Amino acid sequence: MSQSVPAGGQLTLNSDLGESLGLHSFGNDLDLMGIIDVANVACGFHAGDPDTMAATVEAAAARGVRIGAHPGLPDLVGFGRREMKLAADEVENLLLYQVGALAGFLRKAGLELNHLKPHGSLYGMLARDAELMGAAARVAALYGVPFYGLAGTEHERVCAEAGVTFVGELYVDLNYGSRGELLIKRRPEPTDPQAAAERVRRVLAEGVVEAVDGTLLNISFESVCVHSDAPNAVDVAAAVREALSANGPAAVSNAS
Amino acid sequence: MSQSVPAGGQLTLNSDLGESLGLHSFGNDLDLMGIIDVANVACGFHAGDPDTMAATVEAAAARGVRIGAHPGLPDLVGFGRREMKLAADEVENLLLYQVGALAGFLRKAGLELNHLKPHGSLYGMLARDAELMGAAARVAALYGVPFYGLAGTEHERVCAEAGVTFVGELYVDLNYGSRGELLIKRRPEPTDPQAAAERVRRVLAEGVVEAVDGTLLNISFESVCVHSDAPNAVDVAAAVREALSANGPAAVSNAS
Amino acid sequence: MSQSVPAGGQLTLNSDLGESLGLHSFGNDLDLMGIIDVANVACGFHAGDPDTMAATVEAAAARGVRIGAHPGLPDLVGFGRREMKLAADEVENLLLYQVGALAGFLRKAGLELNHLKPHGSLYGMLARDAELMGAAARVAALYGVPFYGLAGTEHERVCAEAGVTFVGELYVDLNYGSRGELLIKRRPEPTDPQAAAERVRRVLAEGVVEAVDGTLLNISFESVCVHSDAPNAVDVAAAVREALSANGPAAVSNAS
Amino acid sequence: MSQSVPAGGQLTLNSDLGESLGLHSFGNDLDLMGIIDVANVACGFHAGDPDTMAATVEAAAARGVRIGAHPGLPDLVGFGRREMKLAADEVENLLLYQVGALAGFLRKAGLELNHLKPHGSLYGMLARDAELMGAAARVAALYGVPFYGLAGTEHERVCAEAGVTFVGELYVDLNYGSRGELLIKRRPEPTDPQAAAERVRRVLAEGVVEAVDGTLLNISFESVCVHSDAPNAVDVAAAVREALSANGPAAVSNAS
Repeated sequence: MSQSVPAGGQLTLNSDLGESLGLHSFGNDLDLMGIIDVANVACGFHAGDPDTMAATVEAAAARGVRIGAHPGLPDLVGFGRREMKLAADEVENLLLYQVGALAGFLRKAGLELNHLKPHGSLYGMLARDAELMGAAARVAALYGVPFYGLAGTEHERVCAEAGVTFVGELYVDLNYGSRGELLIKRRPEPTDPQAAAERVRRVLAEGVVEAVDGTLLNISFESVCVHSDAPNAVDVAAAVREALSANGPAAVSNAS
Repeated sequence: MSQSVPAGGQLTLNSDLGESLGLHSFGNDLDLMGIIDVANVACGFHAGDPDTMAATVEAAAARGVRIGAHPGLPDLVGFGRREMKLAADEVENLLLYQVGALAGFLRKAGLELNHLKPHGSLYGMLARDAELMGAAARVAALYGVPFYGLAGTEHERVCAEAGVTFVGELYVDLNYGSRGELLIKRRPEPTDPQAAAERVRRVLAEGVVEAVDGTLLNISFESVCVHSDAPNAVDVAAAVREALSANGPAAVSNAS
Repeated sequence: MSQSVPAGGQLTLNSDLGESLGLHSFGNDLDLMGIIDVANVACGFHAGDPDTMAATVEAAAARGVRIGAHPGLPDLVGFGRREMKLAADEVENLLLYQVGALAGFLRKAGLELNHLKPHGSLYGMLARDAELMGAAARVAALYGVPFYGLAGTEHERVCAEAGVTFVGELYVDLNYGSRGELLIKRRPEPTDPQAAAERVRRVLAEGVVEAVDGTLLNISFESVCVHSDAPNAVDVAAAVREALSANGPAAVSNAS
Repeated sequence: MSQSVPAGGQLTLNSDLGESLGLHSFGNDLDLMGIIDVANVACGFHAGDPDTMAATVEAAAARGVRIGAHPGLPDLVGFGRREMKLAADEVENLLLYQVGALAGFLRKAGLELNHLKPHGSLYGMLARDAELMGAAARVAALYGVPFYGLAGTEHERVCAEAGVTFVGELYVDLNYGSRGELLIKRRPEPTDPQAAAERVRRVLAEGVVEAVDGTLLNISFESVCVHSDAPNAVDVAAAVREALSANGPAAVSNAS
């Protein structure tokens, strides 16, 4: 059996939430909160604002959804999906700022930060650049929380060096390139819920995900990410949840 | 003797720092840090940015200057000195966001937040509006820190109701109106250091400050604020420091 | 017959468009463009961004919808619906900036600016403050375009003084206060299309609109505004269009 | 004699101005305006704001300094000196927006736009990427103005294809790499005025500039740029002006 399935752990479902901006609503947060385990909450740089963060933390707390920080590049118009050349200290400072800002709302809710998961192009930049990822690992270590990222990239390697718990993610609504990299899109497209569920079933059964060019990738993961901004995000999340449940905790522990 | 001087307490000198923005420098932070006791650090909404906050916290920590949050209105171009109509929950959320962001840098430095002191027009809005001030008091209470403000205004009254420690401020580089309100200017003007020192000496000796129209105001305070952006802020701070020192801890406790 | 109906003129239907922001869509622009005569295009301060403006101008141009500038306060999170204390020169400069920015896209499309209509709280501020409105009138005069506003307010009075053509608006999805002022809401609510149409029919027939307290207001107008962000904005626009058409150009010119 | 000196033309001196932001002053604009011929005025994305633009245009107009647009990346904190991955249509739209915004202030001053010169990393991105530069050339063509840039790069090649007048620049306060590329710094450093003047004299006499590695570069130019943000920018500008004047119009036309 593949090593891509975590030993005895519970596979979780996570989603990027709190990405509204003032009157500009975004995503399907409240519906998704009934399905997912873990929310990655935007922190105001690529999306989100203080009022949205307050409402999102309150709603997630009420539903028992665990809350991590989802900081992004300072680019509202580009939704944090346009790469910027940043130095490592700039990355560390924009993470400290955004994670701290979210921690203010968590403090009010009496909650602890669950994890750190950067957004969009920042996520991709950290996957490829050990120095930038070192900055993120320092912030995760400062808060004593895991880092959510892509196994086999600098996300995982630098976390291991820094003693930060790494949680690998599986993506069901983005394509993978032949080297396992995520092909991030600027605008969301609908995902076929059954295709998403099938990807989950196959990786659980065979340990592989098919890249866009047909390459079979060994994807190690403990959490499945469903983006909130696909038009049918709720259906995708529900289908993935069902695929995970069918597998079940027993199946997961058998996999070890 | 006037009750305007605190019983037995040490009068402190505070200044608003960290108000640079990227390459746009502002104020005389490093020189002031050698003179003041307490820094109010900007949090990115009216001024400041993650890199400036990191550098300011590091420099203040190295000099033993205590660090409080100096959150402002979301208006870089207006430097937080243009009033905005905000609801109380909006005020609470923008304070939670900004104070949290600063707390991220303090966490890295191993420091605790010292106090909360809002900036510019937000400071003035809270002095006049009990509902808005209630939001600020909730944030100060959440962090268990004092609120710096104007005695005799809603700052003080609402803190008392909310059980938040209130620290009254004396301003030496702004004029007071006849009802004790601060006359906030959009652009800094030079302050005569000797006039500033004289205001301190008089309030320590007689308990009064003269308003622009000649009214004698009873100003109760425990900390003197010197703005960092006056062209001669360092001279003003040094003159005020000398006036405070001449008075001395003994004089202060005699005053009670 | 009331003087509230323009002499011989064609009553137009206008809507605020281009209020998306990056991936954050807003309003029902394309559907509304098939119904309205005139678009007020957001200019990036309260909503809109360069890419949204380019797409909106292109789409409006393709449908023969005339394009005016819809500049707002610099407040994306508050959607320009939180008043700010601005000086007249600040208002003039933020109008020059935003109108100029839109004019860049119009130049590319080979179009001329049709009119100036400020957004949200800025619209309300100008209705009440002659000095601020003077700044807006100077910008309209600079471009030689009409100003859309509320009859009976400083909008109309200052335009008359400044020699700027004034186009009165009727609102069908906001309530009027007893003095004819608009009761602007922070968040849109659904409007009953038939109530909107009925308001139009009544004002055309009797020259009056009923305020929230029952006061009958004489509203003089040449253009009806339908907001794009109500959930059923397209239905409202269609119902208003039908009410205007039933009246017809003949009826309108009879009204003179 | 080298072809690097323009035939019969007048060599001009240009500087990037209007880069203050609200209360955050920047550069030595008023002093430089007494020395330079041409101002590149920031348009609010990397620096500048409506009030700064208004004041800068007014001051330049009063001194007979010609005014071009100096649009930048949307990044105040990074001062437009952090590269961003943008598509060509995004570049075109952010140029249309910013150039249009400046044109609003020029319209008020009764002036025409003189030229287009992008700022910082955007300038460098366009020098290397023909597709992005095509977007800039379209905007210059739309306004019928020259593009200021680096000879021998995509700046020049794409302008030639697009029928846009190209004005080559010489930089005296930045180093050149061995392929003639500018080594843009995030923070300004003082430039030796005599070294700047000497670079001008040498390129006028011998047609070459020395790169950091000693390579002799043939730099073709018609305008010399002096940055406004170096601590001694005014001294540098004065020294360069003197070197240009010593050469004189006659010498310049002899060079053809």
